[in-house]
Amino acid sequence: MSIDIIRVDDQWYVERDDRTATRIETAAATTGELLADRAAIDAAVAGEPAPVPTGRLQSPVTSPCRVVAQMTNYASHVRDSGMDPETVPLTFFRKTSHSISGPVDDIVRPPHVTLLDYEVEIGLVIGRDVAVGTQVTRENLADVVAALVIANDVSARDLQLPKTQFFEAKSYPTFTPVGPRLVLLEPGDLDRFTDLRLSLWVDGELRQDARVEGDMLYGPVEALQALTGFQPLAAGDLVLTGTPAGTALKAPPKPIEIIGSLLPPARKWKIFFSKQAKNPRYLQHGDVVELSVRTGDGAIDLGRQTTTVRFAEPEPRS
Amino acid sequence: MSIDIIRVDDQWYVERDDRTATRIETAAATTGELLADRAAIDAAVAGEPAPVPTGRLQSPVTSPCRVVAQMTNYASHVRDSGMDPETVPLTFFRKTSHSISGPVDDIVRPPHVTLLDYEVEIGLVIGRDVAVGTQVTRENLADVVAALVIANDVSARDLQLPKTQFFEAKSYPTFTPVGPRLVLLEPGDLDRFTDLRLSLWVDGELRQDARVEGDMLYGPVEALQALTGFQPLAAGDLVLTGTPAGTALKAPPKPIEIIGSLLPPARKWKIFFSKQAKNPRYLQHGDVVELSVRTGDGAIDLGRQTTTVRFAEPEPRS
Repeated sequence: MSIDIIRVDDQWYVERDDRTATRIETAAATTGELLADRAAIDAAVAGEPAPVPTGRLQSPVTSPCRVVAQMTNYASHVRDSGMDPETVPLTFFRKTSHSISGPVDDIVRPPHVTLLDYEVEIGLVIGRDVAVGTQVTRENLADVVAALVIANDVSARDLQLPKTQFFEAKSYPTFTPVGPRLVLLEPGDLDRFTDLRLSLWVDGELRQDARVEGDMLYGPVEALQALTGFQPLAAGDLVLTGTPAGTALKAPPKPIEIIGSLLPPARKWKIFFSKQAKNPRYLQHGDVVELSVRTGDGAIDLGRQTTTVRFAEPEPRS
Repeated sequence: MSIDIIRVDDQWYVERDDRTATRIETAAATTGELLADRAAIDAAVAGEPAPVPTGRLQSPVTSPCRVVAQMTNYASHVRDSGMDPETVPLTFFRKTSHSISGPVDDIVRPPHVTLLDYEVEIGLVIGRDVAVGTQVTRENLADVVAALVIANDVSARDLQLPKTQFFEAKSYPTFTPVGPRLVLLEPGDLDRFTDLRLSLWVDGELRQDARVEGDMLYGPVEALQALTGFQPLAAGDLVLTGTPAGTALKAPPKPIEIIGSLLPPARKWKIFFSKQAKNPRYLQHGDVVELSVRTGDGAIDLGRQTTTVRFAEPEPRS
């Protein structure tokens, strides 16, 4: 049975059900510090229920932290992107943790961005320091991964594709809404990982809906084993594990892609973006984006994230 | 006249010439803390010369810090890479700061890497906290960039190209040798930035040799103005500004590249790597890699970095 933690007004709470919660008596200011104060968490679990606090939900993963993301990690999304799941390599990129926002905060589209897209993902929250060269196995995975969260890997496709490196296109402020719940894993919970189902709705329309099982290409053990070959990790770091099919972006059919590869880049992107501009699935001002990640029986339920898209007005920089 | 700082045995020194230096009396453990202790630096500049310390030179940029790098930022390298300097966008990626090593440390090739390449670069060392949205201009650039360093952006091409995201391929330990000198910029020094000449030798053979002027595509003002649109920066962070032509990797001629784009990825990379394996310019065990960045008159001289390539033996991970 997992423990669900939420964060409101910089305080941490064990969420007991929809209406009751217990404050965690801890001085922890960061997610890493909270995870280290297990006694306080356990005391709250054993404590008295109180009404859920009325303040605004914050991301249960605090920044700064490392945010590492897996590229194209679901077969369905790989096919959507015009690639072959058989040959797509295990690949990481970084997002700045300044992009983390809360589970009810607006997603703000910067004035220079045109093609704003969504990606529902499972986030692995690291539970302890992990040195480069550490062996990550099925046996010690639960020691490395302390918790799971929902994250939306918001992406400016008009920046991402021509630049090829994903870092900037996925790093603007509010481009990583996280939460609501930090779900602490209990023994055996990770055995249910592949039962998790990821869903995302835009204005009530179901856009993404997939189970991990049979779709995820590189699971947490393989991914973290590769990552810790070069990247040290610390408690509170966040590893995003990729998104299934259903994003607004969909690669053109193969023959068109091949013709595109023969064109000079400027011309290719001009044609591509003029076509994409007519795609109504990109996020629009006022769109409500809802995300859910849970097992069918609700034994693990990362909660429901509900954010609204806002187009920022151009403003002078200070 | 710039101030040259070196780091030996976790102590900081103002380097006066080849043979004399003055210890900086500071408690600073990080580059950011050192830059904040300007009084101690100035006292050392005014202090008594002593023999240069005999210990091993360390990177004058300490980790952890943010390491952000510009992709394909010299016209000569862009052409080498089979792209068009007219259309290549201003693009960033991240390296982990765990990859930083000292200016005389070995460059260690991990057992699973085959095509190890070099890239001489100028590193901008950030001097103060910079919030997202800060305007970076020609006028305040010297306030944002405190110092310059040499860096080698070591790259595992066999990982970089199929994965497409550069993060892992450039982030293994010792893949960012930095130093020897942290060159603090004095008023007017940045006007000489475009006069800097970057050179790199492998076993005495000159491989890279270019001036910033007329070759760099996106200079520090434009790059930092874009970067601070989404990435907060702090004192001691490192921004790498790209490399000129002359790396071991060279793109195939255009017709061959177009044929390659029609092949399935697995087959394309197999052909590419079997050709590249015969390229003798990739770094070999025992190769000595030397880097220099300076103005022709030596008014700004980032020193000379001398590292040796070592192929790691496969070993069990703990």
